[in-house]
Parts: sequence; C-alpha cells; structure tokens
Amino acid sequence: MATKFEYYHVPLSQPSRAVLLLLKMTKAPHNVHTLDMLKGEHKKPEYLAINPFGKVPLIVHGDFTLTESPAIAKYIVKCTNREDHWYPADVKKAARVDEYLSYQHTTVRKASIAVAMNFFLTEKFTGKKTTEEQKNAAYKLLQDTLEEFENYFLKNGPFIIGDKISIADLFALSEITQCEMSGRDYLEKRPKVKAWMERCKDELKPHYEEVFQPFLDFCKSIK
Amino acid sequence: MATKFEYYHVPLSQPSRAVLLLLKMTKAPHNVHTLDMLKGEHKKPEYLAINPFGKVPLIVHGDFTLTESPAIAKYIVKCTNREDHWYPADVKKAARVDEYLSYQHTTVRKASIAVAMNFFLTEKFTGKKTTEEQKNAAYKLLQDTLEEFENYFLKNGPFIIGDKISIADLFALSEITQCEMSGRDYLEKRPKVKAWMERCKDELKPHYEEVFQPFLDFCKSIK
Repeated sequence: MATKFEYYHVPLSQPSRAVLLLLKMTKAPHNVHTLDMLKGEHKKPEYLAINPFGKVPLIVHGDFTLTESPAIAKYIVKCTNREDHWYPADVKKAARVDEYLSYQHTTVRKASIAVAMNFFLTEKFTGKKTTEEQKNAAYKLLQDTLEEFENYFLKNGPFIIGDKISIADLFALSEITQCEMSGRDYLEKRPKVKAWMERCKDELKPHYEEVFQPFLDFCKSIK
Repeated sequence: MATKFEYYHVPLSQPSRAVLLLLKMTKAPHNVHTLDMLKGEHKKPEYLAINPFGKVPLIVHGDFTLTESPAIAKYIVKCTNREDHWYPADVKKAARVDEYLSYQHTTVRKASIAVAMNFFLTEKFTGKKTTEEQKNAAYKLLQDTLEEFENYFLKNGPFIIGDKISIADLFALSEITQCEMSGRDYLEKRPKVKAWMERCKDELKPHYEEVFQPFLDFCKSIK
C-alpha cells in the first residue's frame, strides 16, 4: 500500500485549500490533520517539532517532511503520477505553472491578503477599524492585479497552461476566491476571470464544494 | 544548432545574477541583453512588448517567452538536460529545491531587499535618509532570517539539497550576497552560512567572479 500523505491543514488558508483540493482530485491516499489557527495550534511545540516555521500547509510522507504549498503540490503530483495536466511533463507547460506559482507571491496572493486584512481580519483580530481609504486601496490593488493576471495568464486558453486545468489554476482560484471577504462584487469588471473561475469550479466537482464551501459560508456569515 | 536563450539581464538584480550564473555553469547557448534599470530601459515600450510586467530577468527561447526567475532557471535546466544536480530528477531533492524557491519570496529575498533599501537604495534614489532605527530593524530581520535559513535549509549537508549544489543555492547566494550593501560584517554570527557561501563560490569558479564581481565592486565603492 502506498505511503499515505499526512496533511496538516487550516480551512481558512488559501494555499491549504489548494493542496487539499489537489489531494482529493488526484485521489492521493491521505489523512487530514486540521489545525485551529485561532487557538494557535500552528505555534504549539508539538507542531513546531514537525514544522519549525509554524506555517501551513505541511505534508509528512514517510520520513520526508515538506513545507511550502507550491513544492508540496508538485511533490504530490510527481508521487501519485496521476493525470499529467496537474503539473505537465511538457517542459513549456510546466514552466508556465512554475511561472504562475512564483508570480503569485507578490501579486495575486499579496492583493488577496490585503483585501482580507483590510476588509475583515485586522478588525476581527486587533479590534482596530480600517478606514474606507485603506479598504479602497486594497480593492484597487486587487482590481489592478486581476487585470494583469487575466491579460497574461488567461491569454493562452481556457486555463493558465492553455488547454487543461493545472495546479497553477488551483492556487489562483484559492487566492482569488478569498476576495469574497470584501463583500463587494469584485468580479463585476472582470468577466474573463469570472468565466475562468466557473470553468475551474466545474472541473473540480464535487470536491470544490467540499473544500471551499465552509470558507464561502464563513464569508457569507460576515457580510 | 540548439536555439539560443535570449536573456534579458540587469547586473544589480539578484535573481538576474542567479540565472546568468546558471546559463554560464550549464554552458547553455545564450545571448545576454543587458538593460540599464537606472535609465528605465525595463519600462520602455520595446521591452514591455516582450514582457508586460516590465521586470527582469526574462528569457525568449524560440517562440517561447518566460518571466519569473525560478521558472526560468528550471526551464533552462530541463532544456539543456545537463548535470542533474541543478534541478534533480529525484522527486525529494527537486521538492527541496522547490521548497526553497517558494520560501525565499517572503523571507531571504524580503530581508535582502530591506537591507538594500534601508542601507543604500532609498537614500540614493529618493534623497531621503533612513534612520539608524530603520537600518537596525532591517539588519535584525536579516539576522533572524539567516538563522532560520541555516537551521532548516543547511541542516541536510553541504548544500540545500544535501550533497550537491542546485539552483536553490544559486538563488540563496545571490540574495544573501546583496547584504554586502549593509557595509556590516553580516556573517560574523553566522559561520555556517559563511562556510556554505564559500563552498558555493568554490563550486561556481570561474563564473562566480565573472557574474558577481561587478556587483561586489559596486558595493565596495559605496562603503
């Protein structure tokens, strides 16, 4: 029997959702260990003993421990050796996945975090209100980023690498969905991004709902 | 004849130096197009027509254009198919390279940029002096980051993946070397990092000098 992936997960973490979705889509044998970040479980000694960075997601696979979601996702695809399109053997397509996964850190991910912080998290966790000006700045960053994202990464076809869904789409989808936290119709002026998101969700049935619905319900509850 | 890599380069850019060093070490056929960032050549229409992000490095390989240095480096290794250790076929070693390349964005790279900005670039380009407090905060971030880096990424052997140098070492080396800009003996309390850097430089002869010396000379000139 294949060694199971021991997967450390936080449902409200965008990269965690992307990796969990991949585990389910590839039918990789895995156990989910859900950490409660609000209770600081990611900073407790027993978790720090496995992951000194105190971050999620994380996998343990036999005697191999790996941090950083893009690395984890590629490792899962290579180990399970299922469905090439998630991280293609084709050198150019793999390069386009790598390009997005590097690009996102300072762009899509930065914007989605800015939206979450300014529209909800800062107030929730510090009690300090953010101003309308701060909210609008985060929202503008998001809109500018989504425009750049669609002009570059959605120019080649229905998905980021062109013809098929890949781990790049999973990570982008998970970050962009987080902008639900703005409570605004953030895709109103981005029909191309909206159509791509619908295509992804369709490809990811029935696991999209399973992984994302708790987060989306949470977003609705805070509106 | 193999298609040459058309490589767009800025000597003062850390990721650009890492990729140029890889091109030289792998003997990949390439042409270097050096852009003068101080003259804004990366924002001119002729460059934006190739790279809408206006960033470096960039490669054009036949009809394929690729941004983002970690993606570019892996693509070069796969295309040239030389010396497996740069980006190993071994799944666990490749995962460790991917892990570092993802990790660096918000850690090593962030700290090296903070040092460069606070010790030199902000004053040079805006005329505004940075305070000792700001400098010390950037320097502390660097020291904390280097400690984390050595405890995790240098724990497995002489190099990041263990036994051999890889593109992860190239990127880490290029970022950390930038901290020369602090003008401080920033490796004084980090002998493990210092020894690893010396090992890397030794492996990279004679190309380390060729690629890094202009930058190191520049650092000396501003002390």
